[in-house]
Amino acid sequence: MAKKTVTIDDLKKSLTLIVGKKQILFPERAEDNALCQSYLEESRGRSVGKALAIVFPSSTEEVAQIVATCRYHKTPVVPQGGNTGRCLGAQTDDENAVIINLKNMNKIRQLDSDNMTMTVEAGCILQDLQDYAAKADLFFPLSLGSEGSCQIGGNLATNAGGINVLRYGNARELTLGVEAVTANGTVLNELYGLRKNNTGYDLKSLFIGSEGTLGIITAVTLKLFPPEINNEHAFVAVKNIDDAVSCLRTLQRHFGNKISTFELIPQQAIAFLEKHSELTCPIENHHPWYVWYKIADSNPATPLFDENLIILDKLMAEGTVITATVAQNESMKQYFAQIREMIVEVQKCEGHSIKFDVSVPVSAIANLVEKGNAAAKAICPNIRPYPFGHIGDGNIHYNFNCPVGIDDATYRLNYQEKLQQAIYDIIDGLDGSFSAEHGIGSQKLAEMKYYKDPIALDLMRRIKHAFDPFYLMNPNKVIPPLAKKSREEGSDNN
Amino acid sequence: MAKKTVTIDDLKKSLTLIVGKKQILFPERAEDNALCQSYLEESRGRSVGKALAIVFPSSTEEVAQIVATCRYHKTPVVPQGGNTGRCLGAQTDDENAVIINLKNMNKIRQLDSDNMTMTVEAGCILQDLQDYAAKADLFFPLSLGSEGSCQIGGNLATNAGGINVLRYGNARELTLGVEAVTANGTVLNELYGLRKNNTGYDLKSLFIGSEGTLGIITAVTLKLFPPEINNEHAFVAVKNIDDAVSCLRTLQRHFGNKISTFELIPQQAIAFLEKHSELTCPIENHHPWYVWYKIADSNPATPLFDENLIILDKLMAEGTVITATVAQNESMKQYFAQIREMIVEVQKCEGHSIKFDVSVPVSAIANLVEKGNAAAKAICPNIRPYPFGHIGDGNIHYNFNCPVGIDDATYRLNYQEKLQQAIYDIIDGLDGSFSAEHGIGSQKLAEMKYYKDPIALDLMRRIKHAFDPFYLMNPNKVIPPLAKKSREEGSDNN
Repeated sequence: MAKKTVTIDDLKKSLTLIVGKKQILFPERAEDNALCQSYLEESRGRSVGKALAIVFPSSTEEVAQIVATCRYHKTPVVPQGGNTGRCLGAQTDDENAVIINLKNMNKIRQLDSDNMTMTVEAGCILQDLQDYAAKADLFFPLSLGSEGSCQIGGNLATNAGGINVLRYGNARELTLGVEAVTANGTVLNELYGLRKNNTGYDLKSLFIGSEGTLGIITAVTLKLFPPEINNEHAFVAVKNIDDAVSCLRTLQRHFGNKISTFELIPQQAIAFLEKHSELTCPIENHHPWYVWYKIADSNPATPLFDENLIILDKLMAEGTVITATVAQNESMKQYFAQIREMIVEVQKCEGHSIKFDVSVPVSAIANLVEKGNAAAKAICPNIRPYPFGHIGDGNIHYNFNCPVGIDDATYRLNYQEKLQQAIYDIIDGLDGSFSAEHGIGSQKLAEMKYYKDPIALDLMRRIKHAFDPFYLMNPNKVIPPLAKKSREEGSDNN
Repeated sequence: MAKKTVTIDDLKKSLTLIVGKKQILFPERAEDNALCQSYLEESRGRSVGKALAIVFPSSTEEVAQIVATCRYHKTPVVPQGGNTGRCLGAQTDDENAVIINLKNMNKIRQLDSDNMTMTVEAGCILQDLQDYAAKADLFFPLSLGSEGSCQIGGNLATNAGGINVLRYGNARELTLGVEAVTANGTVLNELYGLRKNNTGYDLKSLFIGSEGTLGIITAVTLKLFPPEINNEHAFVAVKNIDDAVSCLRTLQRHFGNKISTFELIPQQAIAFLEKHSELTCPIENHHPWYVWYKIADSNPATPLFDENLIILDKLMAEGTVITATVAQNESMKQYFAQIREMIVEVQKCEGHSIKFDVSVPVSAIANLVEKGNAAAKAICPNIRPYPFGHIGDGNIHYNFNCPVGIDDATYRLNYQEKLQQAIYDIIDGLDGSFSAEHGIGSQKLAEMKYYKDPIALDLMRRIKHAFDPFYLMNPNKVIPPLAKKSREEGSDNN
């Protein structure tokens, strides 16, 4: 016991030596306690974790030293960015773990206009990067709700999505190169700004989306694009989801990838919106479904507004779209965008909602919502389904608000588990994903165990073991644990 | 010795039982010998390999059985598609190895128009897939010289590039899901048609580009796009490479990703073209560099022709482009495309050329060519540099034709090694890649050993060992071997 205390003290001293006294917090130390909260707490304040220390390195070299030191002490490390994740990926309950927060690694190392790339450190705030690119008359398209506080390292660790995926792809597709500290404290240098590089396995894609379980991303080279200086917004009503998909395909044939956003909004969301906010639906009368879409171009001369009207006339004439309104000015555009943001907020006024971040092939969305709603109503007759979001990517934020008059705790207790099983089974039957953009963290380990292809899980375990044999990199995240015995039985490595 | 013969006979019998007598060839059997040649020979006929057997499975299940059987017999397997690779990735010199040729796995399993995807087996010929998509009024953009005979499985195994990467990405970016047989004969089912799926490590990207060293891709789900029914071609002259890059960036700001092809052609190539073919340069007078580019749109109403003329006027007025000609009709478009194809062919009339398939950041191409040409001339004064290709991706096919009057053997013997070292050193200094699109195979193992980041190589070795502990999947490809002793020393797994 005495020996262990000495070891922990040694570790604390070593970590302090690496980053300096001002860049380390110890939750157990009274004067640090308040400062630690925002790093220990889950982003929505639902739980508070533990840690031995929170360190704030300022360089890749310091991250490498921290990891090597923790490895020597057999101490788990938990990388953390802006701590805005939805699946507890940057949290830990282990009071012996060290949280490595990357916020001090916030330098922009290079912006190369001719190559249309920028190389930045992991701790840069997403919005700062968008702004920096804009100043160079370029555009970095990754955009999501938490962009004012999330960090690019965390965005890559979770392969973040957001509202521009339809046109530009997820974080993985926006990244050309990564620098990462491996589990043994060495530095992988794959910080290329290359569009083509077929020299071996795609380590970049492997680190992206691995949620810190294989190493810590310390810097990245990102793709930049011409700015979307010309853009138009429309809000349309459709009678069903299939018509929304037809509308998307027609728009894409006409505008190509200029369709950068295409978001589904259900009648239920408009009802909540009008009840709980100052906003009203831009389309009169009630319709079953709405879509907000955006067309964007880097060429100011493209007559997007007129072209969009022509296409909308055609879509209305053939009956695909019931009615439509287009934004006539900048404030109307903002109004449409605000509606999309607000439909997330107003839900909260109607009590607890059980949430799913799922995807299916775009052709199966109508089927998903039909089956999902029926299954949910069979479980809880007055449940209020609330499916919305990135229909162009097949990614629905499929929420279910509690029936009127049921308290939150009862709703959760009686229906959450049954609903999860029903919805995930439907997703599985449609070859969909139970986590489209939020990742796994420690929150969706049960779903990983149950729904993920067992061969895929086996290969993931092999990679994890090969990269991190002591299981010290963000342990108990992404990969569900095997019982000790079956882990040995399962090993087919020799 | 007797025992070994029995074992090999057992293996032959087992393999024959799996695929049937008509779907297996034995090179050592006289009647099979002639039939084996095209599978044993390198695509350009430069070398002939060996093998114990060549098997032609018709299903994923058969592939899995073959791999499991070979594993039991500790027999290496070499997956093979259309055998059109440039780096000996589908060849072997091991007379005990089994070549698994996928050509019989050529079914299109599904085309989903609403999801804009198709799921196809690995043995489908690339051109057949392009045609199949076109019949459904969709477009599969992967396009390269060997598309009439290469197979999609091989395209993915090597992360193929080609002429449409600028707009659509490499094979990896065109793929949503893979099915693969792992080294122990199980089947990984990640055949998703999903745009978003954050459930664990990116195994799809890992298999793509691994050249059969981690498993065998048996089926894939590919992205489809609206067809490029509206397109325009231009041929322009520029005074230097920086101007070519400026021209590209201006076009991209105007046309967005409608710029689907942008190819650099040097004066030397035009000189060879006019000397050795019926074709002539579409631009009069001689200029240092030329670019052939293509603008394509799925919307027939977009006035690409007129818009292109306006942009070209602007580019000429500001001096970025010296002069330009645009294709006035379909046959002129084909003529431009033919020139681009022919500049590869005419080189052969001028004796041996030492070839490089390299990439650098687009901003560094001018620097690469300046330094590369100077270094080459220092080594061999009358050498004729011939850099051409996918400048928009930073990918130059940097060839060096022998000086006039030197025979091929002398040129190779005296200059090849020195030139390789000089060019690869320059590439390395510019943070470029020594293999942009052709991959590694067994041909570029020395470059992998010398130029690849050692930490990246270490991680690749860990993955290889974790997936294929007996080193039976396409051995001695992609990853350079370690000496037995240093492999053990190097292991940091425990």
